[in-house]
Amino acid sequence: MSQRSGDVFMSVGANAVTFAGQPPLLSHDGVHDARRRIAGRVVHTPVVRSEELEGLAGARLWLKAENLQRGGSFKMRGALLAVERLAGAKSPGVVAQSTGNHAIAVALAAAQYGLAAVLVLPTDAAPAKVTRIRDTGAEVIQVGTTLAERIAVVEELKHTRGLDEIDPYQNPDVVAGQATATVDLLHQVDAADGRLDAVVLPVGGGSALAGACLATTGQDIDVYGAEPSAVPALTAALQAGGPVTVDARPTIADGLRPDRIGQLPYDLAHDTVAGVFTIEESAIAQALRLVLVHARLLIEPAAATAVAGALRLAADGQARDIGVLVSGGNVDTSLVASLLDHRPA
Amino acid sequence: MSQRSGDVFMSVGANAVTFAGQPPLLSHDGVHDARRRIAGRVVHTPVVRSEELEGLAGARLWLKAENLQRGGSFKMRGALLAVERLAGAKSPGVVAQSTGNHAIAVALAAAQYGLAAVLVLPTDAAPAKVTRIRDTGAEVIQVGTTLAERIAVVEELKHTRGLDEIDPYQNPDVVAGQATATVDLLHQVDAADGRLDAVVLPVGGGSALAGACLATTGQDIDVYGAEPSAVPALTAALQAGGPVTVDARPTIADGLRPDRIGQLPYDLAHDTVAGVFTIEESAIAQALRLVLVHARLLIEPAAATAVAGALRLAADGQARDIGVLVSGGNVDTSLVASLLDHRPA
Repeated sequence: MSQRSGDVFMSVGANAVTFAGQPPLLSHDGVHDARRRIAGRVVHTPVVRSEELEGLAGARLWLKAENLQRGGSFKMRGALLAVERLAGAKSPGVVAQSTGNHAIAVALAAAQYGLAAVLVLPTDAAPAKVTRIRDTGAEVIQVGTTLAERIAVVEELKHTRGLDEIDPYQNPDVVAGQATATVDLLHQVDAADGRLDAVVLPVGGGSALAGACLATTGQDIDVYGAEPSAVPALTAALQAGGPVTVDARPTIADGLRPDRIGQLPYDLAHDTVAGVFTIEESAIAQALRLVLVHARLLIEPAAATAVAGALRLAADGQARDIGVLVSGGNVDTSLVASLLDHRPA
Repeated sequence: MSQRSGDVFMSVGANAVTFAGQPPLLSHDGVHDARRRIAGRVVHTPVVRSEELEGLAGARLWLKAENLQRGGSFKMRGALLAVERLAGAKSPGVVAQSTGNHAIAVALAAAQYGLAAVLVLPTDAAPAKVTRIRDTGAEVIQVGTTLAERIAVVEELKHTRGLDEIDPYQNPDVVAGQATATVDLLHQVDAADGRLDAVVLPVGGGSALAGACLATTGQDIDVYGAEPSAVPALTAALQAGGPVTVDARPTIADGLRPDRIGQLPYDLAHDTVAGVFTIEESAIAQALRLVLVHARLLIEPAAATAVAGALRLAADGQARDIGVLVSGGNVDTSLVASLLDHRPA
C-alpha cells in the first residue's frame, strides 16, 4: 500500500470553510464529523453480501448499497451538506451542472431547504432524470452536449442571477459528504466483526475516490479506483502527474463520463490510491447482471464498474474482504432489459 | 380489525414440540423466542423505503427485503429452525417437497448442519433452482408435475430411508421461523420511530400469513393476505370455513401456486386475517417493475403480489403505514427482461 500523506489534507479554494471548533472538513476527522451531521437525513443504506456472488468472486464482497439512497445515489450526501451550508448563509439559490445524479441530489436537497435551484443538463440527458428533477420544483436548463457548454451557462447564471454554484467535484462539502458513504461502510463492516483489506470506488470526476481516501486515513485499507476503459481519466491523471482531459469513447457507464478528474479529488487521492482498474464495457454489463441476479439489487453501470473492479481484485488474490461503493441505481429499464436479453450463455 | 384468538395458538401434530422452560412455539412469545434463536444465522435484511414508490402509493411502504435473505427468500428462517431441531435429535437426514424456495432453504440448512437432504421437485422446476440445490451437495429427485406425485415420493423416502420430512406448511418450526420475518419487520419499524397500520403477506400455502398473525398478536395491526386471482386458495378457504383445493390457472407467481392452504396456517390465521387481496397477473407484473425501478430491488412475482396488495390497500385509504413481506428474489432473468420490455407506455 502506498503512503498516506497524513490526516489533514490540503483544502483549496474559497469554499474551503472550517467551522469554528470543528476539524477541517477535508480531513479524516472532518468526514467523520460530516457523517454525524448527516445522520438521520440520508438513508442509512445497508451493506449487502451475497453468498452466491462471493462464491463466484472467491472473496467477501461488502456492497454498500447506495443505490437505495435518497435520489438513487450517494450524491445525496454531498448535496445535502453543500445546500445546508448555503441555506445557512442565506443563499438566494443554487445552480449546478450535471448529467445526472448530482443534479437530482442538489434538486432534492434544495427543495428540502426551501432554496431555488437551477440544474443545467445536456440536451441528451435521460428524460426520466429530467422529469425527476422537475418533480422537485427545480428549474431545468438543457444546453448542448458538452461540459464546456454547461459550464458557460452556470457562469452566466452565477453572475446574472447571483446563484451559488455547487460543483460536483470541487466543492469541499460535496467531497466530504461523498466520503461519508465510505465512513458508513467501515462502521458497518466493523459492527459485523469484519475487516476490509480494500475498498473499490467508481471514478468519474473523482469525488467518491477522494472521499474514500479521507475516510480510510490511518487504516491499513487499500483504496482502488475503477473506471471505464473508454474514459481512463484517472489513469491518465496519475501518469501525467495531474488532471488531463482524455479522449472519451462511448460507455454505458453514464455516471463516469467526465473526461477529466477534478483537481480537488486528484489532490486528495493521488498519493493514496493503491491502483486503478480500467473496465471494458462487457465487464461492466456482466457485473450489473451478476449483482442483479445474485445480490438482487438494481444498480447503475457506474456502480457495476466498481463491482467489476472488485471482481478483478479478488481474482488477483490480493484481498479477501473488499468493500465496494455501489454508488447508485438510476438506470433506464430498457438498458437493463437489453443487458438481460443479451447475456452470454 | 377482527378479534384475535389469544396469545397461545393451538399446536397440532407430532411435530408440535415445546422446549422445556420455553414458551409454546406457535405463540406470540414463541416466535419472538424463535427470532432470538435465529439471530446471527440468517441475514438481518433491511427494511427498504422508496420515496418514489411511496409517492405513487400515497402511503408509507415498509418493504422487508427478504429477497436479500440467504437462499434468496424468507424460507431460510423456517428451514433453519426445523433442520436445527432434527439435527439435535440425530436425524439420519431430511426430505422435503417443494417447487422452489423451501427446497433451496432446506438444502442450505441441511448442508450447514451436516445432514443428508433429499429434495423432491417437479420435472418442470426451474433449472437454476435445481442447480442451486445440487450445489449444496443435496440430492434432487424430479418427479411428475403435481403435488400428489411429489408427496408420494416423500412418503416412500420416509419409510424406505428413514428420512425426516420438513413440510413447508405443516411443520411448526417452519411456521414459527417464517414468523420471525414479520417480528424483525416490527422491530425495525419501531426502531425507526414508525408504526404500522397493516402488514401484507403473499399467500401460497399460508406459512407467511400464519407467521404474521402470530407476530402481531396483541398489536393493533391489520394482517392482510395477497394471492394471485389465478389461485385464490385463501379466499376459497375463508369462504368454505376450511382449506379446499381450488382450480388453479397459470400464474407468473410460481411461489404462490399451491392450490390449497395448509391446515396449520389456516388454523392460525383464519380468525385474525383482516382481508385478502386477489391480484391479477398484470398487477403482479406491474408491482415487480415498480419495485425494481423505484426501490431498486429485484423481487420475485410472489413478493410482487404482496406489494400489489399493499398498493390496493393504500389506494383504498385504509392504511398510512403498510409493512410488506418482500418474500424472495428468486426469479428468472428472462422473465424480468420480458416484463421490462413489455411494460405499458
